[in-house]
Amino acid sequence: MHWQLPRSIAGSHQLAPLLTKGHTVKMYNSPSGSNPKKVRMYCAEKGIDLELAHVSFGKEEHRSDNFKSTINSLARLPVLELDDGTMIAESVAICRYLEELHPEPPLFGNTPLERAQVEMWSRRMEMEVTVNISNILRHTSPFFATTVVQVPEFADASRKTALQRFEWLNDELGDKTYLLGDRLTFADINGYAGFVMMSQVELEFDPKLTNLIRWYDNLASRPSAEA
Amino acid sequence: MHWQLPRSIAGSHQLAPLLTKGHTVKMYNSPSGSNPKKVRMYCAEKGIDLELAHVSFGKEEHRSDNFKSTINSLARLPVLELDDGTMIAESVAICRYLEELHPEPPLFGNTPLERAQVEMWSRRMEMEVTVNISNILRHTSPFFATTVVQVPEFADASRKTALQRFEWLNDELGDKTYLLGDRLTFADINGYAGFVMMSQVELEFDPKLTNLIRWYDNLASRPSAEA
Repeated sequence: MHWQLPRSIAGSHQLAPLLTKGHTVKMYNSPSGSNPKKVRMYCAEKGIDLELAHVSFGKEEHRSDNFKSTINSLARLPVLELDDGTMIAESVAICRYLEELHPEPPLFGNTPLERAQVEMWSRRMEMEVTVNISNILRHTSPFFATTVVQVPEFADASRKTALQRFEWLNDELGDKTYLLGDRLTFADINGYAGFVMMSQVELEFDPKLTNLIRWYDNLASRPSAEA
Repeated sequence: MHWQLPRSIAGSHQLAPLLTKGHTVKMYNSPSGSNPKKVRMYCAEKGIDLELAHVSFGKEEHRSDNFKSTINSLARLPVLELDDGTMIAESVAICRYLEELHPEPPLFGNTPLERAQVEMWSRRMEMEVTVNISNILRHTSPFFATTVVQVPEFADASRKTALQRFEWLNDELGDKTYLLGDRLTFADINGYAGFVMMSQVELEFDPKLTNLIRWYDNLASRPSAEA
């Protein structure tokens, strides 16, 4: 297995090099998948220029013995590698780590209450709403056939649940711009990146869910959504 | 619907009243369920004396229109109510909020790296390991028949996945006492409380998983495990 040369996600944005007090960090990344996207979008919003090392899902590099023994035993992306070889898996853990090195602008909240609300909404978006999209994909896609005990009937059930949760979210959003009100937080990023798999499972928003569609379109229009 | 009088989880422990800078807080709680247990166990470890308001799962009080319109629209427990009526749902969000009011002893890590590792392990325990136990219960128990599109075949698949993840966790634990090494963190609490549903779904640890059993028995022996 060999990695492609790390590439920057800087694109056309002005990004600051990652402040790591002398440490270099690198993220094992894939252009597809919601979880790597969460970190890339977060970094774009923060102005963090993270070195990316490409791991090919298509070639199943993340399932190789080498990857599992040295990078992430769960065969998942993304993973952040620190210069001492420490590996941090889980997109939310990576973003929380980067937030501590780059506190401004705060995307995890400004006060204890706001930070609790970011955690609450981040979890609701991930574990109540977009998990259903992920479950449809995991239980129908040939890509997961060797690693998931696939149950197509559960994919159907997840589709029904997803549609219910979209209605719930539409009601909760009301006329808010972002989940916490007027300001973007990581909860929006976590949710938005989870929705990007919708097209892969032939799910669409019901046009009557105008709050949800407004929220989604607003996120989609941010330059960070391209990250 | 009426709540029972709040009761304290103090039991026989010496607990400090919750430091809230003049604010009172109360948690909507149920004695059953993993998620309320996470907060109670966390509070017992921190020495936080949290007022509890009992909500009856058996009477489906959490599914009443009143509960959903005033406490948690997702009909889930636990929920923390602040004295201005603000509701914080999601057990992890509640614990993070309490951690900010009661920083000592730190259970979410002492350094940016430790805090990332607590987040990583907390998520792995919840979303890779114990979610499978929860899925078995949700897809087989009559309690969930009206709120979950139940797929018994998915419960069977979750049982297989649970057993695979137990082996994975056993390997990851090695001879560590706690998930991060020598010191208890919220990741252990999140994981342990997720395992308590095992008996309800007739799951047991394979006796060969000695690291996992040692970790579990150690957690189970803490006074906080009774909370």
